[in-house]
Amino acid sequence: MEFGIRILGSSSALPTLKRNLPSQVLTFNKKPFLIDCGEGTQLQIRRQGISFNKIDHIFISHLHGDHFFGLFGMISTMNLLGRNKPLHIFSPSGLEEIIKGVFNKTRTDIQYNINYHTISTKEADDILETKWLKVTSLPLNHSKPVCGFLFQEKQQQPNVIKEYIEKYNLSISDIVNIKSGNDLLLSSGKIITNSELVKPKPKPRSYAYFTDTKFVAEQYFSIKGVDVLYHEATFAEEDKQLAHTTGHSTAMEAASAALETDAKLLIIGHFSSRYKTHNHILEEAKKVFKNTISAEDGNYIEITHY
Amino acid sequence: MEFGIRILGSSSALPTLKRNLPSQVLTFNKKPFLIDCGEGTQLQIRRQGISFNKIDHIFISHLHGDHFFGLFGMISTMNLLGRNKPLHIFSPSGLEEIIKGVFNKTRTDIQYNINYHTISTKEADDILETKWLKVTSLPLNHSKPVCGFLFQEKQQQPNVIKEYIEKYNLSISDIVNIKSGNDLLLSSGKIITNSELVKPKPKPRSYAYFTDTKFVAEQYFSIKGVDVLYHEATFAEEDKQLAHTTGHSTAMEAASAALETDAKLLIIGHFSSRYKTHNHILEEAKKVFKNTISAEDGNYIEITHY
Repeated sequence: MEFGIRILGSSSALPTLKRNLPSQVLTFNKKPFLIDCGEGTQLQIRRQGISFNKIDHIFISHLHGDHFFGLFGMISTMNLLGRNKPLHIFSPSGLEEIIKGVFNKTRTDIQYNINYHTISTKEADDILETKWLKVTSLPLNHSKPVCGFLFQEKQQQPNVIKEYIEKYNLSISDIVNIKSGNDLLLSSGKIITNSELVKPKPKPRSYAYFTDTKFVAEQYFSIKGVDVLYHEATFAEEDKQLAHTTGHSTAMEAASAALETDAKLLIIGHFSSRYKTHNHILEEAKKVFKNTISAEDGNYIEITHY
Repeated sequence: MEFGIRILGSSSALPTLKRNLPSQVLTFNKKPFLIDCGEGTQLQIRRQGISFNKIDHIFISHLHGDHFFGLFGMISTMNLLGRNKPLHIFSPSGLEEIIKGVFNKTRTDIQYNINYHTISTKEADDILETKWLKVTSLPLNHSKPVCGFLFQEKQQQPNVIKEYIEKYNLSISDIVNIKSGNDLLLSSGKIITNSELVKPKPKPRSYAYFTDTKFVAEQYFSIKGVDVLYHEATFAEEDKQLAHTTGHSTAMEAASAALETDAKLLIIGHFSSRYKTHNHILEEAKKVFKNTISAEDGNYIEITHY
């Protein structure tokens, strides 16, 4: 099942010609989930050929403009494209009032429902569960209340090995039982253990999105074992002081977070526009956590089975 | 003196990969004036290498999101870049409340002054006068209160012909008098007429920005004789009905406006994204008004002395 991340914007507060404002699309089984929505996100979505109408869920980490000013245009565009199904927006409190304020004052009639889901920035919360995916919000530490997001593939039921279906002439009810983890009791009284009958599904994959945040070791406990971690690395080590006063992380701190969580892959992004290039930031992170890549606008990173 | 228009966005409400949301930069004597500010304008400004800090005046035609949603990010960016001089924003009423609402609710502290100038959408008004330029707002006709803008170069005082300065040994006071239009009285009692002494400056140039609007003949009286007219041509002739119900113009109507005003050049834009290409729209306009060009993002059109 396809599970991946498309980077739409990898800059921090100031967009550049190479890096757009923060946004990503997580895709699971062809279903896109938008994470953050800086100005210009709708154009990045068009550029990547993603259908606006397939997006039903948007997750906003916090209410700094660079992470949500693209919502005004995105919501308008969905409206003009004739959307008639609900849109779910998850964010810390305050967003509903802001969005409604703008559209009410401009007397814009949005023809579809927007369901605003306010998420806690004080404690972890399971905010969405679909057939395939569970999304959990996790408090981070920044100059403003902010949430990280953990996307976990749900453990799927194993397949029953085909040859046993034939060998034991299994009914649909037998198969349902076995998939649920039960052993098989034959009419002879013999028991075939469940583990012999099934081919287990691979371990579920997971992705965590952590921005904007400073490095606080405790906040990584809840994503221990995550496969892929996206962590902001706004600053290089030389600007550590600035990172701390502004509630951000350096590349080395992002890498330390990856160590803390035992992540398999670290993606760093949210780069400050003060640096002309960001290769030195990537190198700094790699010294601490080798399997690090930098977010680049347009890039797609598959969340594989590690 | 340089006088020109840089097209930043030529789409209507839906941006495309080729056409950004409405925005233009008018430049006079190296001073940029921003007209409309759709989402993504700040990136277009960067792309064109225009300095944010040189922009002191922004003119917003009306409060449809595609014409001003870029202000949130633009104002934030100017703030992050350390702006410390006032920004003047001219718009129909309501914008101040919207912008302040968003920044207050996100507790964003904008460190420079924004002077909001509310302009009438009922009658023409001279809204700005600089050393070189006079800007007039003009009511248009759309589904929302909207203003067009007329930018008129001011008539500059003529130069006194150098050889007469020497011939008559003119003092600075004499020169000031002559530049102001007075004749010269020689000590002999002879009068040299003003027109003989000066080399007049060329006729002042003018530019009118008319979007969004439907075609209403009377609204063009006040810009009779304008050099260059930018007029929306959202729709092709085949969609005339749609143009009228949505308060927009067809290309032929934009061309009729150019005829009404005796413009020297017509620029059409604000094209609907329903058309894959816009060449047929340009051809329709040209049938009525030959000297028509279509707005293309990034293009620069000089306002010459016609």
